[in-house]
Amino acid sequence: MPGERRAGPLRSAQDEAAPAAVAVDCNGADLGPAEVAAGALIAARQGARAILFGPARELRAAAEGCELVDAPLSIAKSSDPARAVRASPEASIVQAARAVAEGRAQSLVCAGGTGAALAAGLFNIKRTRGIYRPALALPLPVPGRPVTLLDVGANVEARREHLVQFAFMGAALARTVFGVDRPRVALLSNGEEAARGSPLVVEVHAELAQRTRTPLEAFEFIGNLEGDGLVGGVADVVVTDGFTGNVALKLMEGVSQRTLSAVRDAAMSSPRARLGGALLRGALRAFRDEVDHGRFTRAGFAQAILRAARGAREDIVGQTQQALQGAGALREAPMSVQVASLRHRR
Amino acid sequence: MPGERRAGPLRSAQDEAAPAAVAVDCNGADLGPAEVAAGALIAARQGARAILFGPARELRAAAEGCELVDAPLSIAKSSDPARAVRASPEASIVQAARAVAEGRAQSLVCAGGTGAALAAGLFNIKRTRGIYRPALALPLPVPGRPVTLLDVGANVEARREHLVQFAFMGAALARTVFGVDRPRVALLSNGEEAARGSPLVVEVHAELAQRTRTPLEAFEFIGNLEGDGLVGGVADVVVTDGFTGNVALKLMEGVSQRTLSAVRDAAMSSPRARLGGALLRGALRAFRDEVDHGRFTRAGFAQAILRAARGAREDIVGQTQQALQGAGALREAPMSVQVASLRHRR
Repeated sequence: MPGERRAGPLRSAQDEAAPAAVAVDCNGADLGPAEVAAGALIAARQGARAILFGPARELRAAAEGCELVDAPLSIAKSSDPARAVRASPEASIVQAARAVAEGRAQSLVCAGGTGAALAAGLFNIKRTRGIYRPALALPLPVPGRPVTLLDVGANVEARREHLVQFAFMGAALARTVFGVDRPRVALLSNGEEAARGSPLVVEVHAELAQRTRTPLEAFEFIGNLEGDGLVGGVADVVVTDGFTGNVALKLMEGVSQRTLSAVRDAAMSSPRARLGGALLRGALRAFRDEVDHGRFTRAGFAQAILRAARGAREDIVGQTQQALQGAGALREAPMSVQVASLRHRR
Repeated sequence: MPGERRAGPLRSAQDEAAPAAVAVDCNGADLGPAEVAAGALIAARQGARAILFGPARELRAAAEGCELVDAPLSIAKSSDPARAVRASPEASIVQAARAVAEGRAQSLVCAGGTGAALAAGLFNIKRTRGIYRPALALPLPVPGRPVTLLDVGANVEARREHLVQFAFMGAALARTVFGVDRPRVALLSNGEEAARGSPLVVEVHAELAQRTRTPLEAFEFIGNLEGDGLVGGVADVVVTDGFTGNVALKLMEGVSQRTLSAVRDAAMSSPRARLGGALLRGALRAFRDEVDHGRFTRAGFAQAILRAARGAREDIVGQTQQALQGAGALREAPMSVQVASLRHRR
């Protein structure tokens, strides 16, 4: 029922005639801002409109004709991102976030500096009404259909209601950005049974099971998943707290790199193995590219920009809020808390 | 100062003239009890004395001449291990644990059914004085020098003092069983700085840093380690709670299996790749064997028995307690708590 879909607050601020724009912070990339700009050019050829923030001279050389804002100051490597965001309104990530806040862009892509991006978003774009906490979601480096893990580090501690909301937020991401029709959402735990897990996980399981008792259009809750399930292809979205999610993400990267480098070592261990390795090289490269999605190259940035444009076009914010509202899982507005407390005083 | 080392309680119960015995529960193995018995025979040829518990006829055929106790009942697959242990004193794992409790054996190897082994140990052998909680420790499936991760699932919730003790317990395991002189012990977290991590991890970090300010003989505390550090070879022992540890362990197994099977698929993707794969096969098999240590075969069980014998011989229990006492990290005896509470009443 697209006619009934509520426009998200970001969407409503935009001119419906112009294509939505993606604000791209080009600073912080391992290969430099020009690589990001080159990615924006690729995305532009596929119909995404990007506004680039970074050192104008470098960007212009790499992406002639793209809209850009000269913002050479990078705070991507800051050890205290919240303070850096407050102290540096001219930093590229802060300017990019402001472009979204003011409706000049509808989504944000950042090439590096997750902490600064999170802080700039929180301070400038702010959370949508009814959302407790932001989460960091990431398509995992596994082959095949993407598995989105969240939270991978925004909240080292999470409460029940946060994790419940993350399930809806992750599902909306999988629907809008990855085109999964009715995402299968799981909860990361140390056992598959509903009663297994930390007290927090057991509580979240019970609440999600209860809220999805009437089948939701938004997603299917498939219960607990153990660590190996993250690569098993049985879930599209896996929910966990930011501590466990961060450990899991970095562990996956470490193990898959370690395994591939061991295969490389094996392929250097004898003349016979060396010949075998040379013959296998092409097939293995395809696998490696599929796994890391060329994340830090222009192709990766182009994909990120196209995904961000798609998320805004499909109204990820509005979809999240609508699903949370339908399930009664939105945070109550502070207003009603104030009213209640006033009443109490009388 | 070996003369000053306090004999552990298990050690003191044994006849010093006879070689220490390892109680081996042969039930619960994927390949059946005979595979475990075959492993015991290999270990026996290398000097380890094993007492086998399981179905006598199968065991005798596989390990002629080994001591054995007919205990066909297995509770390895029980969904409620604690209840099964209480209800089945004749089960093989319960009889094996009793053999240790009564001094007929000095250590325990169990072929399958971690939950039942943990419960049988807790009820029969019990914890050493001053230890809060048991932990499950496991050498990780990574190539090279073993990295011991604990806890991988005994405690889904852990308090500060539990994790502090796990550092000492893991270090004693690495010293006695793996022969690491002064183990490097790390704390699993979502960042390397001391201030990063959940509030629990930050507290544990501070206490371990304080207790190891005067360099310990027992181990070196090297601080926080992120997920990828588990395979980086920078630590010998990594401490975490049982929830995170279990997720990490299963994730590692899943990712390394997934990566190896993707390499296999790549090696079937074209005639050229197939030839390459055939030439590489031997070199890759060596890597795979190193990673999974042939855990579920007779070779794996032989190694487990030899390690258990070594742990008892090197007095792992006494070493753990001694190190904890030196650092002031033993749990206070319940007696003194009672005295204090009596005083309070007066």
